[in-house]
Parts: sequence; C-alpha cells; structure tokens
Amino acid sequence: MSQSSPVEVHWHKHSITRQKREQLNGHTGSVIWFTGLSACGKSTIANLVDCRLHAMGIHSYLLDGDNVRHDLNAGSDVLAERHEKPFAERFGLGFSAQDREENIRRVGAVAKLFCDAGVVAIAAFISPYRIDRNRVRGTLADGDFVEIFVDTPLDVCEARDPKGLYKKARAGLITDFTGVNDPYEVPKNAELVLQGGEGSAESLADEVVAYLKASGKIG
Amino acid sequence: MSQSSPVEVHWHKHSITRQKREQLNGHTGSVIWFTGLSACGKSTIANLVDCRLHAMGIHSYLLDGDNVRHDLNAGSDVLAERHEKPFAERFGLGFSAQDREENIRRVGAVAKLFCDAGVVAIAAFISPYRIDRNRVRGTLADGDFVEIFVDTPLDVCEARDPKGLYKKARAGLITDFTGVNDPYEVPKNAELVLQGGEGSAESLADEVVAYLKASGKIG
Repeated sequence: MSQSSPVEVHWHKHSITRQKREQLNGHTGSVIWFTGLSACGKSTIANLVDCRLHAMGIHSYLLDGDNVRHDLNAGSDVLAERHEKPFAERFGLGFSAQDREENIRRVGAVAKLFCDAGVVAIAAFISPYRIDRNRVRGTLADGDFVEIFVDTPLDVCEARDPKGLYKKARAGLITDFTGVNDPYEVPKNAELVLQGGEGSAESLADEVVAYLKASGKIG
Repeated sequence: MSQSSPVEVHWHKHSITRQKREQLNGHTGSVIWFTGLSACGKSTIANLVDCRLHAMGIHSYLLDGDNVRHDLNAGSDVLAERHEKPFAERFGLGFSAQDREENIRRVGAVAKLFCDAGVVAIAAFISPYRIDRNRVRGTLADGDFVEIFVDTPLDVCEARDPKGLYKKARAGLITDFTGVNDPYEVPKNAELVLQGGEGSAESLADEVVAYLKASGKIG
C-alpha cells in the first residue's frame, strides 16, 4: 500500500445494518403490497393506512402511480423529454405484459430498499400477474412481504370508474386494460383479503392496521 | 354514486406530505451524491458518513452497488434467472453508455423517493457522465441535491486497485472502464470537492458532515 492512498487503510465497510436502522425507527421494515383491479379502492385504502401508521409514529412510505409514473417507471414519452429516443423506447414503460413485468420488478426492488432502510413500504399497484407479485415476494425475506388483495367485484369497479378508463376500454380506446381486455390473476396466498365492495375505506384501512398489529409487523 | 361502492365516498387522497414525514424524522430529506473514479474512496467515505449520520439519530440510507446491483439495476445475467431472455436483455444493465445512463437514472429516481420520505439518501456511484448527474439534479428541488466529487488522482486509484479492475482494464480484459477506456467527466459545480488522495477516509467523512451542518441540511 502506498502512502499516497491513506483512504485504503479503512477500505472495509462500516455499514449500518438493517437492524440498526430498525432500532432507530423503533419498528421493523416490511413491504405491504396492495393489489387489485383499477378503482378497487387499493390506493385510497393504502393512503389511509399510511396516515394511520404515520399517526402512530411509524416510518412508512407510500409507493403508487403518483410517485413512480413520472420518474422511475416513466413512459417513453416522458423519458424522451430528457433522453434520446432509442433510450426512451427501450426503458420507458407502457402497459404491455413485458412492460408491466418490469414496472412491478422495479417497484418491488425499491420497496425492498425501503424495507432494508427499516421503513414500512406500502405499495399500491394493480399488479395483475401472479408471477410478478410472487417474484417480489421471492426477493424478500420470509414475513417481509404482506400481500393484500382488495377484492372488489369488477362490476363495482366499473360502476365507480372515476377516470372513465373502463368506459374507454370497453369502447376499445384502451387496450391491455386489466379486467376488460387483459387478465387479473387473483392471489392464491394473500396474507389479507379485503372485501372492497363492502364497508368504508376507513373500516378497510382499520382491518389492515389490525392485521399488521396482530401479525407483529407493527408494535 | 351507487350504494354498492362506499369506498368511493372517500376517494380523495389523504396523503402524508414530505413535510409531515420530515417532522416525524426530525430533519429534512436530501440526496447526497458521491461521484468519482473506481477506488477513489467514495463508497468508503459514504459509508462513514452514513455511520456518522445514524449516530446523530438522522434517518439516512446508503445506495451503492452493493444494494442495487443484484436487484433494481441487475445485469441481464441476473435477470435471466427469474425472467425470460428478451426481458433480461432489454432491462438488464451492463456498462455501455446507454446502460450507465439508465443505471444512474434509476438510482436518481430512487434517491428522490427516499428524499421525499424525509430520508437523507446517500448515493455512491462512479456516475462518470456529467449529463447523467445533472439530470438527477434536475429532477430534484433546489438544494435537495448535494454533489460531492471525490477527486482522487487516477494514478492513486490505480495504485489502490483493490479488485484488480484497473489491471484488467489495462490488459484489455474490461472495456468501457472509467478512467482507462471510458471517460470520467469532472463535475463543474459540485457542492463539495474532497481531495481523495490526501487525508484519511475518516477526516474526509468529517468534512462532509461539517458541510452538511454548515449548509443546514442536517441540524
């Protein structure tokens, strides 16, 4: 070792472990994954759970379309504003099966990082394919992944249709729309199933918090 | 609104704002971005800064090759273990200019999410291209991005060569190796420049913490 490279003396890592981050936060990290049809209520319920946890002093963070659509998982049109066209076309995500696969893979990887940071990561995505959700589960340690299926009947979702997307999909203006012309695969082993067509969003959020307490995910 | 869709009654978002997350954490979120040649010391210094901040009760999280290489920014070989080949080839990242661009874009997007969660995100990546670093800066609010250039002379880095990578690059066994056969573009407006060839990693980490205090990023 040369005297001109003193940094190397301390080349070994002094990493802060997940356990130490959890000690600072006062609770463990985990990934709470909401899945279900468009307009099933998952985003609303996830937001309420985030509020409940925050009020309890728990370090949570919500990942949903609002904060990943414009950056991490932006479409090629958004990427093309800052990058070359071939780049935007390769990495931009739309709604094809392959794009959805990558969409969920990236979100899963980010949720894992938040979990490692001792944060309760709350993800709310349609995530229609079972294999994609199970891949996320597979990257996490046992017990770190809590899959919550918001089981709202399609006709209820379609009656809500807050953005008019079902209507457009039925008119053939949107292709690959989950529940209309692209499948939704019901979870087989979800940790919790919410009857999204019954009860208020508040009561469903209460169910989630009760589950997290009962299962020891939060104190 | 039909009576069968009570969730919609509360369809509006009750989002926890960044400000509320920062209040819970007791400090603001930010992105501390270390850039520099391979073996310049950035990862070691970043780790030490993470330790210092953690000891101060600050919620920090370190993003570096160790925790993004195998998941978020995995190579096509790793992705091919769980995904189809065309998927792995499209989204897997190597060291071409386009792949490095996406590597930094994804890390920047994740750092932004941590910042929004009120966490001090510490990123340590070679990030050799100015435009890629500036794009990350451009996605963040003014003051949220702290660029730290670990300015260690190439000959010092090469003398360290802890993984033998410079040797391999000189022998032509690695292409696109920053500093040897791929450029490193020195930051023009870094918030802080560390003389990575002088002083211990500890003293350089102290410099960073002193800067963060002086600039009001941490209390």
